[in-house]
Amino acid sequence: MNQMELKRLLEKVAAGDVDVTSALLRFRDASEPERSAPSSGGISRSGSPETIRAEGKTAAQIAGTVDTLRSVGQRTVLITRLEPGRAEELRASVPLIYSEMGKIGVAGGMPEKTGFGKIIVVTASSGDMPVAEEAAITAEALGNEVTRLYDLGSAGYLRLLARSAELRSARVIIAVSGMDGSLAGMIGSLTDCPVIAVPTSSGYGASFGGLSALLGMLNSCSDGVSVVNIDNGFGAGYLASRINHLGNE
Amino acid sequence: MNQMELKRLLEKVAAGDVDVTSALLRFRDASEPERSAPSSGGISRSGSPETIRAEGKTAAQIAGTVDTLRSVGQRTVLITRLEPGRAEELRASVPLIYSEMGKIGVAGGMPEKTGFGKIIVVTASSGDMPVAEEAAITAEALGNEVTRLYDLGSAGYLRLLARSAELRSARVIIAVSGMDGSLAGMIGSLTDCPVIAVPTSSGYGASFGGLSALLGMLNSCSDGVSVVNIDNGFGAGYLASRINHLGNE
Amino acid sequence: MNQMELKRLLEKVAAGDVDVTSALLRFRDASEPERSAPSSGGISRSGSPETIRAEGKTAAQIAGTVDTLRSVGQRTVLITRLEPGRAEELRASVPLIYSEMGKIGVAGGMPEKTGFGKIIVVTASSGDMPVAEEAAITAEALGNEVTRLYDLGSAGYLRLLARSAELRSARVIIAVSGMDGSLAGMIGSLTDCPVIAVPTSSGYGASFGGLSALLGMLNSCSDGVSVVNIDNGFGAGYLASRINHLGNE
Amino acid sequence: MNQMELKRLLEKVAAGDVDVTSALLRFRDASEPERSAPSSGGISRSGSPETIRAEGKTAAQIAGTVDTLRSVGQRTVLITRLEPGRAEELRASVPLIYSEMGKIGVAGGMPEKTGFGKIIVVTASSGDMPVAEEAAITAEALGNEVTRLYDLGSAGYLRLLARSAELRSARVIIAVSGMDGSLAGMIGSLTDCPVIAVPTSSGYGASFGGLSALLGMLNSCSDGVSVVNIDNGFGAGYLASRINHLGNE
Amino acid sequence: MNQMELKRLLEKVAAGDVDVTSALLRFRDASEPERSAPSSGGISRSGSPETIRAEGKTAAQIAGTVDTLRSVGQRTVLITRLEPGRAEELRASVPLIYSEMGKIGVAGGMPEKTGFGKIIVVTASSGDMPVAEEAAITAEALGNEVTRLYDLGSAGYLRLLARSAELRSARVIIAVSGMDGSLAGMIGSLTDCPVIAVPTSSGYGASFGGLSALLGMLNSCSDGVSVVNIDNGFGAGYLASRINHLGNE
Amino acid sequence: MNQMELKRLLEKVAAGDVDVTSALLRFRDASEPERSAPSSGGISRSGSPETIRAEGKTAAQIAGTVDTLRSVGQRTVLITRLEPGRAEELRASVPLIYSEMGKIGVAGGMPEKTGFGKIIVVTASSGDMPVAEEAAITAEALGNEVTRLYDLGSAGYLRLLARSAELRSARVIIAVSGMDGSLAGMIGSLTDCPVIAVPTSSGYGASFGGLSALLGMLNSCSDGVSVVNIDNGFGAGYLASRINHLGNE
Amino acid sequence: MNQMELKRLLEKVAAGDVDVTSALLRFRDASEPERSAPSSGGISRSGSPETIRAEGKTAAQIAGTVDTLRSVGQRTVLITRLEPGRAEELRASVPLIYSEMGKIGVAGGMPEKTGFGKIIVVTASSGDMPVAEEAAITAEALGNEVTRLYDLGSAGYLRLLARSAELRSARVIIAVSGMDGSLAGMIGSLTDCPVIAVPTSSGYGASFGGLSALLGMLNSCSDGVSVVNIDNGFGAGYLASRINHLGNE
Amino acid sequence: MNQMELKRLLEKVAAGDVDVTSALLRFRDASEPERSAPSSGGISRSGSPETIRAEGKTAAQIAGTVDTLRSVGQRTVLITRLEPGRAEELRASVPLIYSEMGKIGVAGGMPEKTGFGKIIVVTASSGDMPVAEEAAITAEALGNEVTRLYDLGSAGYLRLLARSAELRSARVIIAVSGMDGSLAGMIGSLTDCPVIAVPTSSGYGASFGGLSALLGMLNSCSDGVSVVNIDNGFGAGYLASRINHLGNE
Repeated sequence: MNQMELKRLLEKVAAGDVDVTSALLRFRDASEPERSAPSSGGISRSGSPETIRAEGKTAAQIAGTVDTLRSVGQRTVLITRLEPGRAEELRASVPLIYSEMGKIGVAGGMPEKTGFGKIIVVTASSGDMPVAEEAAITAEALGNEVTRLYDLGSAGYLRLLARSAELRSARVIIAVSGMDGSLAGMIGSLTDCPVIAVPTSSGYGASFGGLSALLGMLNSCSDGVSVVNIDNGFGAGYLASRINHLGNE
Repeated sequence: MNQMELKRLLEKVAAGDVDVTSALLRFRDASEPERSAPSSGGISRSGSPETIRAEGKTAAQIAGTVDTLRSVGQRTVLITRLEPGRAEELRASVPLIYSEMGKIGVAGGMPEKTGFGKIIVVTASSGDMPVAEEAAITAEALGNEVTRLYDLGSAGYLRLLARSAELRSARVIIAVSGMDGSLAGMIGSLTDCPVIAVPTSSGYGASFGGLSALLGMLNSCSDGVSVVNIDNGFGAGYLASRINHLGNE
Repeated sequence: MNQMELKRLLEKVAAGDVDVTSALLRFRDASEPERSAPSSGGISRSGSPETIRAEGKTAAQIAGTVDTLRSVGQRTVLITRLEPGRAEELRASVPLIYSEMGKIGVAGGMPEKTGFGKIIVVTASSGDMPVAEEAAITAEALGNEVTRLYDLGSAGYLRLLARSAELRSARVIIAVSGMDGSLAGMIGSLTDCPVIAVPTSSGYGASFGGLSALLGMLNSCSDGVSVVNIDNGFGAGYLASRINHLGNE
Repeated sequence: MNQMELKRLLEKVAAGDVDVTSALLRFRDASEPERSAPSSGGISRSGSPETIRAEGKTAAQIAGTVDTLRSVGQRTVLITRLEPGRAEELRASVPLIYSEMGKIGVAGGMPEKTGFGKIIVVTASSGDMPVAEEAAITAEALGNEVTRLYDLGSAGYLRLLARSAELRSARVIIAVSGMDGSLAGMIGSLTDCPVIAVPTSSGYGASFGGLSALLGMLNSCSDGVSVVNIDNGFGAGYLASRINHLGNE
Repeated sequence: MNQMELKRLLEKVAAGDVDVTSALLRFRDASEPERSAPSSGGISRSGSPETIRAEGKTAAQIAGTVDTLRSVGQRTVLITRLEPGRAEELRASVPLIYSEMGKIGVAGGMPEKTGFGKIIVVTASSGDMPVAEEAAITAEALGNEVTRLYDLGSAGYLRLLARSAELRSARVIIAVSGMDGSLAGMIGSLTDCPVIAVPTSSGYGASFGGLSALLGMLNSCSDGVSVVNIDNGFGAGYLASRINHLGNE
Repeated sequence: MNQMELKRLLEKVAAGDVDVTSALLRFRDASEPERSAPSSGGISRSGSPETIRAEGKTAAQIAGTVDTLRSVGQRTVLITRLEPGRAEELRASVPLIYSEMGKIGVAGGMPEKTGFGKIIVVTASSGDMPVAEEAAITAEALGNEVTRLYDLGSAGYLRLLARSAELRSARVIIAVSGMDGSLAGMIGSLTDCPVIAVPTSSGYGASFGGLSALLGMLNSCSDGVSVVNIDNGFGAGYLASRINHLGNE
Repeated sequence: MNQMELKRLLEKVAAGDVDVTSALLRFRDASEPERSAPSSGGISRSGSPETIRAEGKTAAQIAGTVDTLRSVGQRTVLITRLEPGRAEELRASVPLIYSEMGKIGVAGGMPEKTGFGKIIVVTASSGDMPVAEEAAITAEALGNEVTRLYDLGSAGYLRLLARSAELRSARVIIAVSGMDGSLAGMIGSLTDCPVIAVPTSSGYGASFGGLSALLGMLNSCSDGVSVVNIDNGFGAGYLASRINHLGNE
Repeated sequence: MNQMELKRLLEKVAAGDVDVTSALLRFRDASEPERSAPSSGGISRSGSPETIRAEGKTAAQIAGTVDTLRSVGQRTVLITRLEPGRAEELRASVPLIYSEMGKIGVAGGMPEKTGFGKIIVVTASSGDMPVAEEAAITAEALGNEVTRLYDLGSAGYLRLLARSAELRSARVIIAVSGMDGSLAGMIGSLTDCPVIAVPTSSGYGASFGGLSALLGMLNSCSDGVSVVNIDNGFGAGYLASRINHLGNE
């Protein structure tokens, strides 16, 4: 339900055409496209984008939801936490762009780019790639141009520094890192754009499942950095897209 | 040092006019306005805005730095962690807009609004106000229009819901909350703009110094929310300003 | 052993008819129906209801205990932590109402409703359903009317708000949620009845096995909320039943 | 705003007499008696009882709020976190029942008893008394009969056992304890009524500010026990009152 | 090496018959019977009793060590962390008393009772039995009379109270419990003898792998209680035996 | 109430001479000498020795309790957590052996030695002395011979090794240490007697208020070591005394 | 890229022969030998030695990288986190010195000894051996003489003391230990050389995955001890080699 | 006691000239110069350098120890944890080099430089200076040349990079940092020498008293970094000196 529809509905309530209970039910239906009700296409409201979390669902269930969404005009559907086996099954009925690394699929093809600038996804080391791919493909499926700069955490960030100019060309940067999480602070100090930090659970020992990276990122000396949940690539891609769609108006 | 100056310096190095060491030293000077070198006025580069952290400094030291900065053309200087007593002393030599609540002062007057939209700062309860004021005044001092909506966390968020339309008029929202930190998730689900969550250490018992709010915010069900350090109002205001200055280009 | 029996036994001790040691042994036997001694049917004393925890027991052992309990007049027996395979085996000898989702079975049929009101079990997301089902079936097996309202945590709690009237019809509410646990506080502020919060271990990353939800629930701004152990659906159902059986007398 | 008023307001919205925005604003006002709007007296809605948290308020501010509340018909006003000095000041203008131990005051006199049964507040040791008094006086100010049984945690709970019969006469029990928190489990196993456990921060060493008691209470072997935040006496008294006012209807 | 032998060796060093290096090497050999050197039978020195930790060893390796130890006169050998499969293999060459519950075996038969009193091992619930059996068999293999009182944690410790007299007949008590660990404090307050508390990792949720029981036991209100590592049944049995062999001299 | 009195009372109940309620009340009174009831002198029952915890009591209150206890025949009274100022006041009416270091006083003079052996109290460094003194004086006031060996943790435990023979002359050892807590394990491996480890909060940085020492002591490689709460010198002294009074019978 | 090459490159930049971007790219390539670019043999720069982390790579990928490195003159290549199965596959094409215990392989043969002294690797118990072997072989592959002293943690460190002279012959010592981590402090106090402590996750219960050893080592009373990450044998071996290659110049 | 003296003593024991007990006592005395026994001047043995920890000592006590040490030939004495007030008192009798920032004093004048290279102490921000000064002065008092590079953590480490050449001239680097601790990893990757990381407790919020910096440093991607306790400047300076005195022999 977009802002226009919302306003219209509220006016109907005020006018007595719709009672409060029904209005609330429409709110609910509108914000749950994947469950039952068709939305009228276009960009869906925040909080519940056209995203299906595949965990605990059969290929048939996922395909059904995709069909319903597409039948009401939704072009692109994002499917997260999608294991390779299930993706294979799903492909029988739904054409799919699929990343095994990010365990994420896109049905209906990638949309055209509607964001105002470029999102850059950076990782510190190879163990951070699954989370980074989830972030990158999420952002692409939401209409953003995405550049990947992976594995820049080693050798005293010299590789990162060599990419400073490229980093400065981003409108938003997603910094994905386990270990000490210092990648995010480094990027924050080299650039002027918002930096979304994603701690990953990819370390060992005293990384304590990502806690070390999380604390490091929260304590970064650089301003302009904020943090999402450990391993939450989807959330970072989603937030980056929100920021990248902010216009001048 | 802005992008243009940077490029010019690098070209000089490539041309052999400036050696690497000198180039690096200029980088350093350019990024440390408050220590020695004058900047050319206007908006300074990220990472080190015209901000002085008053903690551990005498009023004389602060006044000195303000003078230096202003003498080279800097109009507005932000002074954080400024205790009331020191603010009083400082006022003798530096005209000051000062918030005792947020322990933050602004020398040189507030700048005109240069951000594209409005930043709204929301708190859950009265204990969150000091952190919220630090965020709000930081954002104002960086050229943003700021609306404060305080104390919306009680009564099942009914007051928050009543302000939904207003919240949706923001370009960025800063959600400041101790306790369970659920304010941020609520706002995230009611709006489409980026939400910067600031956990505060204002609770007691099992809030464990803000840990409870921090974890709650990181685990929020709503997308579009990211988190800064506990009690880091300055960081939230700074990041919100970064986002609010993103134009279409 | 009910209050009447207890009083009678104590009078016998006072009268010298029964010595202290024997009295204590009778206490023990009376409070352990599942182990050896028959109780006289009806509602058993607190602490050890007619519940069998199936973990680490064979189907034969469980069936034996059910038989003993039923032979002394116990109609309904609750079996928790019952894996599907074992439930299948058990069915050969014991007719069973079984929930694979909640891993809980009921032998002897559901009792009639003896509670004074309705218990509503609410979840935030689909990952909370196993714990919710354990709570719901426990409450039903203890003689309560139960309504399930699942998956109300998304979309800014709009679906939850749409059910406000229904929530207010409850005498007790069980709020089951992982992530930030904010469901419980929301319900607490919308209703006047006691809310029993059950944190679940269903999240990932910084949910730290349910710790985030637990702390969030303990720090809820709403009064009227109390918390049981992570994933303790049985405990919540049991406590809700206790409250729902409190009469006016 | 009571249920009747609420329904009437909603009907007006449905009839077009009141628009949504105004309706929401009335909700807000109704649920915030202490800030501006008068309520019509009687029992206020949950979430915001006639309670003033004195922390950070002057005696004059508190007195003003009390006056406003009483002027609109509110008889009893509870004032928590009220330090002795401020209580003394407050007494000049507001007659007060005050407990220095519990740092809690009651203006307007205690109400008559409206709960259906008795609430018993139990402590393990003398260090738990401040929290217990906050709970007890809260419950009394909400119209409940309260019995205090203090210091029953020592000597192997023999003193507690000696009070078993008395404990069984309660409709709700509040168990207040630091250290290992085992008091709550003991009471839970001796009684059939709901037990609200309040961990306190009164221990030392590995009690880690109440964490030890909190975990102990959550892991209690006894069913029927639920837990509120560390040192949250007010919350326990409030919840106990809610349960004690549940009638048969 | 017993005290007599030690003294003799030291005299030899003082007399120049043995050099320091050799003396130190003899110390080493004497304290490592299972590795290479024969001890003269009887009770071995503390720290390294005739115990083999089976983890990571083949049946052949274990049998070899048992043989070596027995060939030099050691009658009883304790084998901890012994999985059922390996125990079966071992039996082919070494006659074994084996407890699958406690994963512990005794070669060479149980010794005669040399302790001065009785050690009682108590558990709170059935999940604590593996740790309790490790403790009990360790104590028996070290020459102590052991009584097992299992599953006394339920029903408000009424079963425990019924055994008070028996508990008071112990010289040392080992209290094994997960959950809130309150069993140890209860026993400590009912008896006068030393109580060794063993937290177990048998709970779930907020028991956090035994942390809850550990903290509970450390914070017990009862004096006379001390704690060993989580799940350390062997350590408790060993310490209990030390205490039980303390004579009047 | 000693064992003989207890047995007699129970026989009276069995005989009908005393009812259960009265019996329970006598239990209570007997176990609370400091509150009201006189005990018959001699060694009091465990759990509540003739100890007064001074925290939060006035000198007059303490003196009153001492008088009551002494009037019914109690010779020695231990007063813990006694600040120097209060000790000074107390001395006006009660002759006192007082240790400012251990904040512990003894009224009525030290008793004769009734333990069978010697208790040795060892510390690692000077910061551990307050806790050690609390332990040592507690043990002395309970009738034990105590030897202090302080500051043996430095220089690779060479000083400790030099005292090996003396350590082996103890019947019980109390090892008091902050930092890494390794003192306890060292002593455990050098001796055959029970070792009671007391972690202290005396370190800084990653000692986290004694947590480091606590975990180190629990994980000690040496058997024969058990642990009490952080800074719990009294508990260690009390337990050591219990063990030292175990005779052959 | 060695220091000489670095200086030369920087001079070329200063001279205008190489532009900044190209210089930075050469930095990058030079510091990533395993990815694409050949280094000129000899000792590689810090941060990225000729080490391949096998985790997540196929035998073919590893072999390819080894070939590339050796084709440009690198003699010895270290392969860490190499599982036995993969090592077996790898051997088909790459001659390998392999340690199953340390899961580490060396291609190209061990280099000659270039370090100035001897590195000694010490373990407390057998569970620490995998980490110790990773450390020892890393140090050997970097040109150091290594002595292994394993299993010296038991029996009160008497075995360790017996080896004091040998320990003092080391230039650097690596102390590998789980449990309480006290091994490192003991060694630190017996010797004058730097001690690198490696906590291991080999314990159980309250060792909490190596946290106990980590805290113990950080709190060691001995100076001269520093700590690396839990289970980080490679890092310890690498640092020890750095120190052992420090000459007089 | 140096190595030569040690060997001679052991030969005497072997020859029967000194008995074991006396030998051990000499060990003890030799390693405790500050307590009683004179050392023969020169560099003292590790573990207990000529250092006095002033905490809890009077100026007179400190002066006495200094005198004793100097009377036996010790030239330089280091006094740590020395508050300004006490330093002032001390100066009356002992000439002192004193740093108020590092709360550390040196009696007897700084020694000549005996280390082979230079130690560089780096800090991230001004809050880290007290710990850095403790480290720097400790190293100087132990005969090392020390360079201080403070406040290099801001502005994306550009200032640090500008000092790369200088950093590479160090033989050992001490990296002192709170917040995320990333300074240490940055330095580790820019240099080849050993880096000793000192986390500080200087942050706020989620820095949790230095825990964040500690974890960040342990998880640093750079090899060559090891960590000492939070705020342990002395330990870092001491270890750096040990490494800097390692010669070629």
